[in-house]
Amino acid sequence: MEFSDRYFAKHMEPISGSAIRDIFKLLGKPGMISFAGGNPSNAALEPEVIAPLAQEVISSIGAPILQYGATEGFIPLRASTHKYLLDSGVPCQESEILPTSGSTQGMDLLLKALIDPGDVVLVEDPTFLGALQTIKTYHAKIVAVPSDENGILPDELEKAMKEYKPKLAYIIPTFQNPTGTTLSIERRKRVAYLAAKYGVLVAEDDPYHDLRYEGETLPTIKSFDEEGWVIYLASFSKIISPGMRVGAMVVSFPSLMRKCVIGKQSSDLHTPLITQAIVDAYLRKGLLPEHVKRILVGYKEQLNAMLEGFRAFPEGTKLTKPQGGLFVWAELPQRVNTTLLLEKAVNKGVAYVPGTHFYAEGGHHNTIRLNFSNSPVDKIYEGMDKLAQVINESMK
Amino acid sequence: MEFSDRYFAKHMEPISGSAIRDIFKLLGKPGMISFAGGNPSNAALEPEVIAPLAQEVISSIGAPILQYGATEGFIPLRASTHKYLLDSGVPCQESEILPTSGSTQGMDLLLKALIDPGDVVLVEDPTFLGALQTIKTYHAKIVAVPSDENGILPDELEKAMKEYKPKLAYIIPTFQNPTGTTLSIERRKRVAYLAAKYGVLVAEDDPYHDLRYEGETLPTIKSFDEEGWVIYLASFSKIISPGMRVGAMVVSFPSLMRKCVIGKQSSDLHTPLITQAIVDAYLRKGLLPEHVKRILVGYKEQLNAMLEGFRAFPEGTKLTKPQGGLFVWAELPQRVNTTLLLEKAVNKGVAYVPGTHFYAEGGHHNTIRLNFSNSPVDKIYEGMDKLAQVINESMK
Repeated sequence: MEFSDRYFAKHMEPISGSAIRDIFKLLGKPGMISFAGGNPSNAALEPEVIAPLAQEVISSIGAPILQYGATEGFIPLRASTHKYLLDSGVPCQESEILPTSGSTQGMDLLLKALIDPGDVVLVEDPTFLGALQTIKTYHAKIVAVPSDENGILPDELEKAMKEYKPKLAYIIPTFQNPTGTTLSIERRKRVAYLAAKYGVLVAEDDPYHDLRYEGETLPTIKSFDEEGWVIYLASFSKIISPGMRVGAMVVSFPSLMRKCVIGKQSSDLHTPLITQAIVDAYLRKGLLPEHVKRILVGYKEQLNAMLEGFRAFPEGTKLTKPQGGLFVWAELPQRVNTTLLLEKAVNKGVAYVPGTHFYAEGGHHNTIRLNFSNSPVDKIYEGMDKLAQVINESMK
Repeated sequence: MEFSDRYFAKHMEPISGSAIRDIFKLLGKPGMISFAGGNPSNAALEPEVIAPLAQEVISSIGAPILQYGATEGFIPLRASTHKYLLDSGVPCQESEILPTSGSTQGMDLLLKALIDPGDVVLVEDPTFLGALQTIKTYHAKIVAVPSDENGILPDELEKAMKEYKPKLAYIIPTFQNPTGTTLSIERRKRVAYLAAKYGVLVAEDDPYHDLRYEGETLPTIKSFDEEGWVIYLASFSKIISPGMRVGAMVVSFPSLMRKCVIGKQSSDLHTPLITQAIVDAYLRKGLLPEHVKRILVGYKEQLNAMLEGFRAFPEGTKLTKPQGGLFVWAELPQRVNTTLLLEKAVNKGVAYVPGTHFYAEGGHHNTIRLNFSNSPVDKIYEGMDKLAQVINESMK
């Protein structure tokens, strides 16, 4: 017999994932300035703090930290995450918290619990390409809801809820990926209200919550959720370490929590105890607030450098000016095609993600997502100048 | 609106998972002797070795170990796992290896890549209950193939391959869970041959491979696989640490490997770098062979104690005498119902898993799986005596 593509599950057919993955392979080239990806700055990572913490938790807990753990998570981490969430304006009980292997897994478990092929999931337009891919693996129908500079448009959201009877809406309310925009407080209230009114679960993905460089912190959508329709996805990737893959989901409906736990049990049984215990120790020692304060200083400088770097871009370029997060989003003149220009840019030593990958329906080839957290200020200027050259040349 | 079970995906309906989970909750009671679970002995875990290793890998690698990693795995771990696999009689290229978050995830990724609702998956009868649960989450049709004391029956396997045209067969060839039996060498060859003949992928789950207390190591099914139909699932859970959740899958068809990588990308993005690096350092320093030699001594004593403990069991009890692994399986007289007796046993201070949970179709209430690795010898005698009492009383 011959092995062929006919063996593959239908739900895996629409997933290529290749464009971005191919870019990522080029990023190892020496001297490459990468505005692609969403990596924290290496300077924002603390191996010198984490190394002794790792040794400490393993030595003090002993053999049980190397044994099987509960799918429901390492109990001390649930407690310290609970405190973190209350401080972050996420009202919840400890029993509503499930530690996950990154918030990617939170979304995956939610989809696994809910989605039959053909079910509708609403997303912002544009939205995080990783979430689009995860949704596609469940063969869901993705419906994109228009957004503006204050996030998803509630009237459009309501229209889509009425028309498509979705099970789930996926929203990144704060410093959205890719646009950097933040959902206004009125809209947050409205989203929570619509969720309950139409019986649509809302996944509130909030990994950039703590990365605010100016303005006031807004209440979470979850804080307006009276019945339990909002699932809050928290991540420690951007504030402690992405490589540890520790996040948490807050699920208020007990029957839904149970399905997520069962789903996790058959996915990876549990998140590794060592990484859970390191994050717990980090939180428990109160290291997070000072660390966040420190990294915000650097990130703000990097953001400003990137915004300044747009000076050489063609006239008519519209860009978001985010108050936080890791990304700047730009709409270039219509005749610029960032998808086509990527190879040229990479050859010149600068990488980015073409905006088209963030749209459920593709298109929008004149848009671009730029990450500033992963490059030092001088490299940001250098990279933006190179990028401006590539773009300007293409317009000649 | 009211949240209700109608929101859940159909594929999650048949999964209760509750019986075992409810047992596991009782295991925390002080003084409980647990023959349930498949935990390694605490004495076989080495926090004193792992703690400094953790510190060492984080300090020496620095910030990159805290950054995002590649879905394809931590490169040094792929290399050290490659050496480990070659030493274990698993011929493969490094590019065929995907580090996973435990071998549970390997099976999950394989199912995700292959299974549409209604597709058939063949399993041994009985088989690992965790695998049954994972297969059910993909809404596959499970067909159980009869086994005897030498493992799955090849003629029955061939019949099932012809009749059901399955995409996948799941087989634990060595010290099977739950029965402890080992597939004979002739049958291993035959399984590999049938896989290629009928074009059925075979998942060879081999977590107990190194835990042999007597007899000769047999070649893996994968070693007879000339075309690539066998996917080998390796685990470090039983020989280094289950709580670290590090395993690996060997996938020879490149297109299938790609689907598994894409599936992993949307499940947890990558296995944590810290745990991958710890396992890599452990292998690289050559600590495994000595460690395995040491734990085998203890496990063999525990196995013998458990076999001896059957002396007080009712006449007519048939038990397997495994040459390795972590479990003894017994068939008790027909009128004994281990499912019903569990509560009584737990109240008396001894726990086990009723055999029915390992059968795709249920039934077989007179069977029982007993784990010996997680209890010291004196507790094994004590627990077996208690269990014999509960069983004998039930027959009066």
